[in-house]
Amino acid sequence: MKKNSSKLKIIPLGGLNEIGKNMTAIEYKDEIIIIDCGLSFPEDEMLGIDIVIPDITYLLKNKDKVKAIFLTHGHEDHIGALPYVLKKINVPIYGTKLTLGLVEFKLKEHKINNLKLQVVKPGQNIKKSNFEVEFIRVNHSIPDACAIAVHTDMGILFHTGDFKIDHTPIDKDLMDFGRIAEIGSKGVLLLMADSTNVERPGATMSERTVGSNLDEIFGGAKNRIIVATFASNVHRLQQIINSAHKYHRKVVVSGRSMVNVVGVAGELGYLQIPEGILIDINDMGNYNESELVIITTGSQGEPMSALSRMAAAEHRKLEVQPGDLVVISANPIPGNEKLVSRVINQLFERGAEVIYEALADIHVSGHACQEELKLMHRLIKPKFFMPVHGEYRHLKQHGELAVELGMPKKNVLIGSNGAILEVEPNSAKFAGTAPSGNILVDGLGVGDVGNIVLRDRRHLSEDGLMVVVVTISRESGEIVAGPDIISRGFVYVRESEDLMQNAKLIVRKSLEDCSDRQMKEWSYLKNLIKDELRNFLYQKTKRNPMILPIIMEV
Amino acid sequence: MKKNSSKLKIIPLGGLNEIGKNMTAIEYKDEIIIIDCGLSFPEDEMLGIDIVIPDITYLLKNKDKVKAIFLTHGHEDHIGALPYVLKKINVPIYGTKLTLGLVEFKLKEHKINNLKLQVVKPGQNIKKSNFEVEFIRVNHSIPDACAIAVHTDMGILFHTGDFKIDHTPIDKDLMDFGRIAEIGSKGVLLLMADSTNVERPGATMSERTVGSNLDEIFGGAKNRIIVATFASNVHRLQQIINSAHKYHRKVVVSGRSMVNVVGVAGELGYLQIPEGILIDINDMGNYNESELVIITTGSQGEPMSALSRMAAAEHRKLEVQPGDLVVISANPIPGNEKLVSRVINQLFERGAEVIYEALADIHVSGHACQEELKLMHRLIKPKFFMPVHGEYRHLKQHGELAVELGMPKKNVLIGSNGAILEVEPNSAKFAGTAPSGNILVDGLGVGDVGNIVLRDRRHLSEDGLMVVVVTISRESGEIVAGPDIISRGFVYVRESEDLMQNAKLIVRKSLEDCSDRQMKEWSYLKNLIKDELRNFLYQKTKRNPMILPIIMEV
Repeated sequence: MKKNSSKLKIIPLGGLNEIGKNMTAIEYKDEIIIIDCGLSFPEDEMLGIDIVIPDITYLLKNKDKVKAIFLTHGHEDHIGALPYVLKKINVPIYGTKLTLGLVEFKLKEHKINNLKLQVVKPGQNIKKSNFEVEFIRVNHSIPDACAIAVHTDMGILFHTGDFKIDHTPIDKDLMDFGRIAEIGSKGVLLLMADSTNVERPGATMSERTVGSNLDEIFGGAKNRIIVATFASNVHRLQQIINSAHKYHRKVVVSGRSMVNVVGVAGELGYLQIPEGILIDINDMGNYNESELVIITTGSQGEPMSALSRMAAAEHRKLEVQPGDLVVISANPIPGNEKLVSRVINQLFERGAEVIYEALADIHVSGHACQEELKLMHRLIKPKFFMPVHGEYRHLKQHGELAVELGMPKKNVLIGSNGAILEVEPNSAKFAGTAPSGNILVDGLGVGDVGNIVLRDRRHLSEDGLMVVVVTISRESGEIVAGPDIISRGFVYVRESEDLMQNAKLIVRKSLEDCSDRQMKEWSYLKNLIKDELRNFLYQKTKRNPMILPIIMEV
Repeated sequence: MKKNSSKLKIIPLGGLNEIGKNMTAIEYKDEIIIIDCGLSFPEDEMLGIDIVIPDITYLLKNKDKVKAIFLTHGHEDHIGALPYVLKKINVPIYGTKLTLGLVEFKLKEHKINNLKLQVVKPGQNIKKSNFEVEFIRVNHSIPDACAIAVHTDMGILFHTGDFKIDHTPIDKDLMDFGRIAEIGSKGVLLLMADSTNVERPGATMSERTVGSNLDEIFGGAKNRIIVATFASNVHRLQQIINSAHKYHRKVVVSGRSMVNVVGVAGELGYLQIPEGILIDINDMGNYNESELVIITTGSQGEPMSALSRMAAAEHRKLEVQPGDLVVISANPIPGNEKLVSRVINQLFERGAEVIYEALADIHVSGHACQEELKLMHRLIKPKFFMPVHGEYRHLKQHGELAVELGMPKKNVLIGSNGAILEVEPNSAKFAGTAPSGNILVDGLGVGDVGNIVLRDRRHLSEDGLMVVVVTISRESGEIVAGPDIISRGFVYVRESEDLMQNAKLIVRKSLEDCSDRQMKEWSYLKNLIKDELRNFLYQKTKRNPMILPIIMEV
């Protein structure tokens, strides 16, 4: 047996010190299983980036060891990196029916077909030689969400996934407290638990409370109702459909991901859709305004979403009009506040009535608040605890919550992506690191945009650029054409002709002052042009455009 | 007398459908006075822009009519555009002592010296021929804030400025309810009132509540205390100094604007600074950690602020260390949430304890909530009402609040920047528009960055650029040098040599396929290069860099 191979290792590849991109590898006796495989959305400074996925170098290096991926639920931050990871490591994927339904849809879009999807029922155990992986039902803002218990001969690891406690869930699928308590009684070696809402005291309200508020709103509405929410929040969709049904309204589904989820969830039986209630967007004209509900994407103010397009009158088939009632059934995710606010303003300006978080209780979180977290800790009673799914502030405070409940401080392990946690029956410690970080996806490129490209994009975004081209004679070393100057994103050229003329003069002058020898050293010439121009432009404008000198030789 | 010249006109030049950049012109009998002259901070899509100021074309066209500027208080969104406006219209400026103290400091920084600053006391009246302008004390998050009543022979206009009601203000300067009620009883023609917090029910807490919480926090602290807050919140600074004094700590002031405000406010008597309590940052080493409080800028997570630099260990003189207690005594302004969160994470990672809005009541707003607004409406009892200082959603809801209080709907006037409101004793209507909008300030340039430059910056920020240079013989029309390709912000060139080589081949090929005649039509050639390259690059990368073809002739 190889050295160290019998250590039980937890290798977080995403989701620590960040919200999103959740992915955890568990390695034991030369086998690796993976819990979740999510993406995150780019930070503001990741200019032009589409999505961010985890660095899986460690898994690629240990490719033969990787046995399976287990998914806790079907949100993008738990499944969104699959199309990229599966292209490199094609292992079986285990998850509940809805989760895999969403995965299948996504992978087909990416034209990945040789799938090994294994549907699991909550309560079921999957044996993978050294691991026995158990799915345990929890509540969350998507149906069919599970915690995962990994049974090993070293002990039990318990990963909550994303969860909240809902004693009156819409689908009546209660969190499996009994089994969680039972596992807790057996003795759990390590708990990994969702930290997203650790700063919020009390408990998250039941999804059902939203339903009764929606009912009231629907009951009072006279014209069209437009409800924006997260496409994946199938329970919310169900409640909107229920309210529509109650008030004899037809339902139009708008926005690509909304159409997708309604399709998948409806087909798999997660949405109860009354016969004939769904109508095509093109048939809206056949109904009175009081007979219509439109369910749409765009609750985060995303500029290209259906709601934003309706609000800006850029939607081909649907325009918000005076009298419409728009319900934004979601809270802005941090960072999206201004986008959401902009859409709300546009909707009001178009004469719609708008109901949003500041005005009514029409959204609940999908994550456990402090009292729910405490219950989880009390039931699991773990020996060691590693908070997951949160920024550093959340992880730290979740650790403090565990200590408050009686856990010795040294048994709380605040990790970070790539920090390998070695667990033994009586000890847990960080030992070594795996490569980890953000792999940026931009168009077809995966990982080809790095710091240099981003630095240049940032520079260009702030001050634009100036290109200087000059053609030099190979023989005489003299300027034979140019200098020509082109700028973009710097100043409005037509109003800055003087500046441009003077810039040309400065370049010409500095080149003319060069000796014959200097004229042959292009790197010297380029730096000269850059320096002279930079100083001149900064003095005149207090701006620093990127300067690109190009020298041609004929 | 000229036609229309006896109309009383309100011309909002900023502050409607936006938070910030407050500026209102009032025109009557060929005279114009201005209330406030503020800036706003750039929206995300205003790439590279430093600040935004109002369009004052209308004032420049009517320059001779402009008689004075009246300032309600010293916040940037009320005084920040003065340096730019005064360069074009130099009229007397009226304001309270602290307001003008801050203005003077700012104008000196901009090297504007020929100032006509007129200090006014709250309660004082300024006669400007057709106008009598009265300053009335209100509460706000800066001392010396006033509402302004403009008395004319047509009636009284009442502008609240920014306000809240604080029955226990730190400086004991109570809002002048008596005078406000008196003016209300005389009959107010038009009320313009702050709408910022109209979505919040109830009333804003007194600034004093923050003091007692700070006291408690200071009392329990063992090591250094670092408090970040808005520099202009002099009452907050006073309370921090009070708590420091109570617990025998010295105070270090950090951050440029904090140093400025403490200087100005201290000098003018708005800050009571106990003898010897302020120490220089360089003398910190002479004290124990338990004897120090640092007051700093950076409560909004601004990347270059003192707190951000301390948290990132980039501050020359001060580094956050384990055991430090950092209090962020401010709420994130919408749009700043992620920046603030990042600083909080960094502070925690450096081992500091951090107290912020989610964890304690250490901030109160400076703006009136619903019940306070209602009191203002009840006291003023205006005939007409135009909500100001808010996005459209706020203006609309403030209008609804007025209707709820009994105002006829037709007397509520939801305006927008540039929409001229004509007021008569028995009517108020929008009639005509003045030029209005955002003038972008970038470096020394005021208004030279417009939509084209921003569109280019945006394009560059998302996909970077590719410059293609080719030199063509004037005589033969043949390529004599190039095509050369340079890219920035597009792909990492060293890893994309194939792509670049192929791009060159494509350019060369398309040029070689051109006829002699086509080779002389540069616009044709440039478009050809753009089209061919765009298609090729999009197919290979699904990205759309800006393509800049440059043709040189020798």
